[in-house]
Amino acid sequence: MKIWNEKVEPAEGVSPCANVLAMITHAFRRPGIQLTITLFALLTAAGAMSQTPAKISHADLSAAQALLKRAQGDSTAYQLAESLTTEVGPRFSGTPGDRAAVVWAQEQMRRLGFENIRTQEVDVPQWVRGEAEFAVLEPWPQPMPSLALGGTIGTPNSGVEAEAIMVKDLAALKQLPAGAINNRIVFFNNPIERRRDWSEYSRAVSVRGGGAAAASALGAVGVVIRSLSTSSERFAHTGGSRQPQDVPRIPALAISNPDADALARQFASGRTVRLRIKSTARDLPKQRSANVIGEIPGTDLAEEIVILGAHLDSWDMGVGAIDNAAGVGIVLTAAHLIRAQGLKPRRTLRVVLFANEENGSAGSRAYAAAHEQTLANHVLGIESDYGAGPVWQFSSRVHPADVGVIDQIHRALGPLKIARGTNEAPGNADLSPLVARGMPILGAELDGTYYLDVHHTANDTMAQVDPAAIRQSAATFAVSVWLGAQYPGKWQRIAPKPPRP
Amino acid sequence: MKIWNEKVEPAEGVSPCANVLAMITHAFRRPGIQLTITLFALLTAAGAMSQTPAKISHADLSAAQALLKRAQGDSTAYQLAESLTTEVGPRFSGTPGDRAAVVWAQEQMRRLGFENIRTQEVDVPQWVRGEAEFAVLEPWPQPMPSLALGGTIGTPNSGVEAEAIMVKDLAALKQLPAGAINNRIVFFNNPIERRRDWSEYSRAVSVRGGGAAAASALGAVGVVIRSLSTSSERFAHTGGSRQPQDVPRIPALAISNPDADALARQFASGRTVRLRIKSTARDLPKQRSANVIGEIPGTDLAEEIVILGAHLDSWDMGVGAIDNAAGVGIVLTAAHLIRAQGLKPRRTLRVVLFANEENGSAGSRAYAAAHEQTLANHVLGIESDYGAGPVWQFSSRVHPADVGVIDQIHRALGPLKIARGTNEAPGNADLSPLVARGMPILGAELDGTYYLDVHHTANDTMAQVDPAAIRQSAATFAVSVWLGAQYPGKWQRIAPKPPRP
Repeated sequence: MKIWNEKVEPAEGVSPCANVLAMITHAFRRPGIQLTITLFALLTAAGAMSQTPAKISHADLSAAQALLKRAQGDSTAYQLAESLTTEVGPRFSGTPGDRAAVVWAQEQMRRLGFENIRTQEVDVPQWVRGEAEFAVLEPWPQPMPSLALGGTIGTPNSGVEAEAIMVKDLAALKQLPAGAINNRIVFFNNPIERRRDWSEYSRAVSVRGGGAAAASALGAVGVVIRSLSTSSERFAHTGGSRQPQDVPRIPALAISNPDADALARQFASGRTVRLRIKSTARDLPKQRSANVIGEIPGTDLAEEIVILGAHLDSWDMGVGAIDNAAGVGIVLTAAHLIRAQGLKPRRTLRVVLFANEENGSAGSRAYAAAHEQTLANHVLGIESDYGAGPVWQFSSRVHPADVGVIDQIHRALGPLKIARGTNEAPGNADLSPLVARGMPILGAELDGTYYLDVHHTANDTMAQVDPAAIRQSAATFAVSVWLGAQYPGKWQRIAPKPPRP
Repeated sequence: MKIWNEKVEPAEGVSPCANVLAMITHAFRRPGIQLTITLFALLTAAGAMSQTPAKISHADLSAAQALLKRAQGDSTAYQLAESLTTEVGPRFSGTPGDRAAVVWAQEQMRRLGFENIRTQEVDVPQWVRGEAEFAVLEPWPQPMPSLALGGTIGTPNSGVEAEAIMVKDLAALKQLPAGAINNRIVFFNNPIERRRDWSEYSRAVSVRGGGAAAASALGAVGVVIRSLSTSSERFAHTGGSRQPQDVPRIPALAISNPDADALARQFASGRTVRLRIKSTARDLPKQRSANVIGEIPGTDLAEEIVILGAHLDSWDMGVGAIDNAAGVGIVLTAAHLIRAQGLKPRRTLRVVLFANEENGSAGSRAYAAAHEQTLANHVLGIESDYGAGPVWQFSSRVHPADVGVIDQIHRALGPLKIARGTNEAPGNADLSPLVARGMPILGAELDGTYYLDVHHTANDTMAQVDPAAIRQSAATFAVSVWLGAQYPGKWQRIAPKPPRP
């Protein structure tokens, strides 16, 4: 409790009475519920309103159990991921695959019974990876497979050759004597540990995101990083790299863990290490892409939106199965199953498949900008962008007054044996602008134990998606979204939070 | 027993009396063994010679136990593999890395106390992989990573595009109607199961070795194979491909298991599948390489050679850790440990690190040819070319009269808990010309459960070598080689066997 009391403040200007009004309105519009029981419950709830939050009805909880059972036997999410990776494949921003994915998504929404299907056109960057070459020249020459980091600049055709220096991370870089990396190539050698959550990624991602800029500011001519990876397979992991205007852009490549180990052994010899990097990465003019939006319309609270987010784009080398065909499959399936089960959600379920999450988040920003006037209607969000699951922990980032309903939702997920997390759900990137404006979120936390083995590699294929895990994830999303849409209280705004960097 | 009675016939012209003479000679030359006991043992053995084979002495078995204990705590094999992969790296036939490996091997032999260190120069093919590109054009376009099969021809610069047909294997190919694959690209889709032994590899390798030639003979313009792989990681596996003179050479590529699955889904759609392949593979003039040879000289039976074989070359994309830096480390360490332990083997231990195993076996053939006159002196062989281990089964291919000593050796390996195999050890490629001429072999069978996850891929790095496993393997080789060198009987020739294709 301390945690969310400290961190999550109620938004101003929201009256608890709004909840009661909504419940009364709802009760008189819904068919098939015995009036006397409902009135009794309402009066009880209204009486207790100033002390205890509203509770989800037995009918809705009962429907949740049937929905859960159905979802546990449903393989739609896996099939969607398989379809997207097979029939579209790579769908990097600005490529033909990206456009094909937009078409695919609309077709699937139609097929699955969504309504109000539409696209929101978005300008996206068109960064071209080209070819990367990396080789140790001294002391012991050998080439190693590599990938350019997203957004980095290429080298001259002749490549860049320089003596190299090995450092752990940005903090270690700052401690080097002045001039130490001038005209050098910097090798960031910062291994990460295997974890179920994001903690190691969060700790180390600054090297990938900021290593090139930091090294450039100190005069380096190139950067090589140990991939942000928990795998011993020989795949380099790409990923976004910030390119601030105030320092020269320099080329930056990632190498796999086994190659980073081998390179570290070369440094350990005590001899001078010389490296060669070559990259034909380049920027081309922006292209059109689109967010794809579809809905399961609500009933009495249709103007309130429960938003389910996942990004549709992928990196270019793989087919983006865990990142993020799985997430696309999970959110589409969650909404679809609610409808297929014959349930009528009070609030509108809106699935948004975002463009350009991987290298720019243009889709996310465009969505927030276009809905500036109706942001407050986005009353609750949930996002899937951490693989195929299973969900191991159910957390939230809601107003303290609404934590009770999170407990209720968690109990409804009981058969899935999911741990109860805190009210500090980390959230994902695409919904972060909405969270920053006070939208509460559900945190169905996907198990990331093996996620960083494959994330942002060519190895991100359907072989990495476990059918049982993604089924469990879709079930979790379906049940929690259903109950979030039925919550008889009003989802109160949370304290504004800066969007993720 | 039936197995080797049927399969392994005694070579002609070998007299059992030769064993007794050898034992007597030995006994009088060896220092530190009490003459009376030795004479008693000898007389007993000589009396029983026509009925029962000679047995390894208690002294030699006792030395084996001390050797085993030492080897179990020794990490030389791992260190050698790490050194070869780090300081040389890829060493494909005809490349500078290949020559560097020859220099490295001689240095290591010197450092480890070998004698008679020398090279045998060998002409090796110089096949250049170049770049391979593979893409599905229809029904759902997407590129997939691929590798050319060894020895295959490249495509025109424009690549080859054609409608494709999917078949399982060569047998299925033959059952197609006449003309069915004319001007087509053939996709061989023949998955293999995970096994500890070679069985699945043996079953399916004909597709890799003979698929291109068979398809070409039927008019195909290109071949794509599902890699001979047990991995779900996205690595294509290369490997040798026969290029007979009587059919046109056609390009042939391998794709990974997850890509083969995805391609099979495209075929499963029922629509026409069109593929594009491009390869810049080509042949360049032959180059010089060398077998590297070093010895631990024997004592009274010094003219008899126990040969320890492993190939020094690797494929070009990886650093050849399990294939075959591990094997190099194991055989060098086995001989080294015997010497380091202060043991004086009766027979000469000869380590031969062969050139060009991967794409031509020129080193193996050259060795056999150069030793044509002294082949009979190669009395026993052991080879390491199936990864880092551990050894899971101890088998042999020896004369039936010598199987008893294999049992003795197996018992001496007791602490390692290795299963007892048959007298039909499969053997490896480099010693096969010697086995074909009647040389018996020990079969220290390395556990291949995960070997075909990595074999012939860019992913063959030191991360795939388990330090404990390679230590156990080197211990097994050391003990069995030591006892094989001490065997007081005479290693009898086995029936000639055709070399492996």
